[in-house]
Amino acid sequence: MIDRLLERIDALDNPTVVGLDPTWEMLPRGLREEQLAAWGKTPEAAARGFLAYNKIIIDSVADLVPAVKPQIAMYEKYGLEGLRAYVETVAYAKEKGLLVIGDIKRGDVASTAAAYAAHIGGVEIEGAFFDPWQEDAVTLNPYLGRDGIEPFLRPCREKDKGLFILVRTSNPGSGELQDLLLADREEEASGEPEPVYCRVGRLVSSWGLEAMGSRGYSRIGAVVGATHREQGERLRAMMPHTFFLVPGYGAQGASGRDLKGFFDREGRGCIVNSSRGITAAYQKDPRFGQDGGAAAREAVLAMRADLKEARR
Amino acid sequence: MIDRLLERIDALDNPTVVGLDPTWEMLPRGLREEQLAAWGKTPEAAARGFLAYNKIIIDSVADLVPAVKPQIAMYEKYGLEGLRAYVETVAYAKEKGLLVIGDIKRGDVASTAAAYAAHIGGVEIEGAFFDPWQEDAVTLNPYLGRDGIEPFLRPCREKDKGLFILVRTSNPGSGELQDLLLADREEEASGEPEPVYCRVGRLVSSWGLEAMGSRGYSRIGAVVGATHREQGERLRAMMPHTFFLVPGYGAQGASGRDLKGFFDREGRGCIVNSSRGITAAYQKDPRFGQDGGAAAREAVLAMRADLKEARR
Repeated sequence: MIDRLLERIDALDNPTVVGLDPTWEMLPRGLREEQLAAWGKTPEAAARGFLAYNKIIIDSVADLVPAVKPQIAMYEKYGLEGLRAYVETVAYAKEKGLLVIGDIKRGDVASTAAAYAAHIGGVEIEGAFFDPWQEDAVTLNPYLGRDGIEPFLRPCREKDKGLFILVRTSNPGSGELQDLLLADREEEASGEPEPVYCRVGRLVSSWGLEAMGSRGYSRIGAVVGATHREQGERLRAMMPHTFFLVPGYGAQGASGRDLKGFFDREGRGCIVNSSRGITAAYQKDPRFGQDGGAAAREAVLAMRADLKEARR
Repeated sequence: MIDRLLERIDALDNPTVVGLDPTWEMLPRGLREEQLAAWGKTPEAAARGFLAYNKIIIDSVADLVPAVKPQIAMYEKYGLEGLRAYVETVAYAKEKGLLVIGDIKRGDVASTAAAYAAHIGGVEIEGAFFDPWQEDAVTLNPYLGRDGIEPFLRPCREKDKGLFILVRTSNPGSGELQDLLLADREEEASGEPEPVYCRVGRLVSSWGLEAMGSRGYSRIGAVVGATHREQGERLRAMMPHTFFLVPGYGAQGASGRDLKGFFDREGRGCIVNSSRGITAAYQKDPRFGQDGGAAAREAVLAMRADLKEARR
């Protein structure tokens, strides 16, 4: 997965991943009205609207971006109907040649993590194999330690799947736990106290050695928020073989110039996510009316140009 | 939720929660064969088997325990069919008068956490309300800080729902992050370095003040693993109004005598989970043959007696 991702980023000259995080309010008016007419005021209406809108976005950007990242929470909100739209979105994106990063942020003890690993590893029942979720990679939470990650390593290696483990998230309150300074100075030449996120970064980097791709990066990547420029630079230096998934661009405040230090010297090593900044771009520009697809395409082109600066 | 939980524990004299974490291998042979005959080797067969077996367990223990805790990962493993069995399990347990703690361990940035909050808060579409998941309480992961918890506080207060936030988990690798010592000595009278899990406990305790029940405990509880006796005692002393959900009893190694310090002086303040120790008890005792329900009932009675010692 990581090799394919690197290849597609190079081929398209674009390290952008489009976040598919739909909300009911984000859908164009006509699309909402159609769903309400067909399904009434029900979760089914929201779910069908999400899938239809995701298809519009995917069709508009599939030749410009290497990957999409559906956020499962937005679908889970609407129960089983919503999750059906998630599954169908993943399948549709793959049909169109996109890599799919499922933003699921799961994390649990080993036996439970083994069940979640079906997201990338599939499931067997009496020898028959099924792949109910089909993502190429998923995001995971590190709070439970290595046990919670371990069951995912096998599908990473054997089925060439990928992980992105939370290291430094983009939200305002993320520092409450992630920035706490540690008392021991293990492996820190400087003798300065090291924050929690750096230690987690170090762990993720070491786990990554067990699932290296062939182009210098591991199948086990890290989530590093764009809103923390200095932390991103520090982690890039600490984690030379760890690919970054970078949320927080656009609607959350960061721009290309903030991201220079997240890339490696060749301008590789990360993929930057934008969700509403692309999928809801039509709401900010009257030229597009209700045409979410055309606005998304223009937003992707602008983002590609902005990121080109950062990769020089 | 927390008041009802305390009342039911008192009424039944039993702080046991039954973990409903089914696996295909755990199901009695006859039940597996029935499902395969009806659905073939498909996720549907596993899902239907899970629901049928959960009903057997629930019917066998509903008059003895206050709550059940389905682990969503075991169902998510089998995709949408599996999750349907989860939803139907939650509904069935509630019909039988049980409180339901959804073990979902979600955690994300604010806008995404707001979507996950539908698990306990339900969802509106154009003014119509739906409750797709129906849990009374859910477990959450604290790695993203307060932002990821905040959206759940409103349903806790307004719909009397509950949370259990991971503080110290029961798995072997949990210390890798949770036991790291912090450099600052904030609020520690002793001047000793404080581990990450204590700081998280302190945060959870402070968040809990915003959603107190009427019997001395907050609707915002903590997950504290039974496998760490000293840590449990330390957290109980630090968090007097925080109710504990305690995994790791039985199959994971802890017994009643390890848990004395997890309870408060009145023998209240926690609920102890056992999953396979109850639901797969029939596999360890030939007297029961394939009768999972009867074995579960006996295991619950034994656990109640064991915990009675701890609560003295």
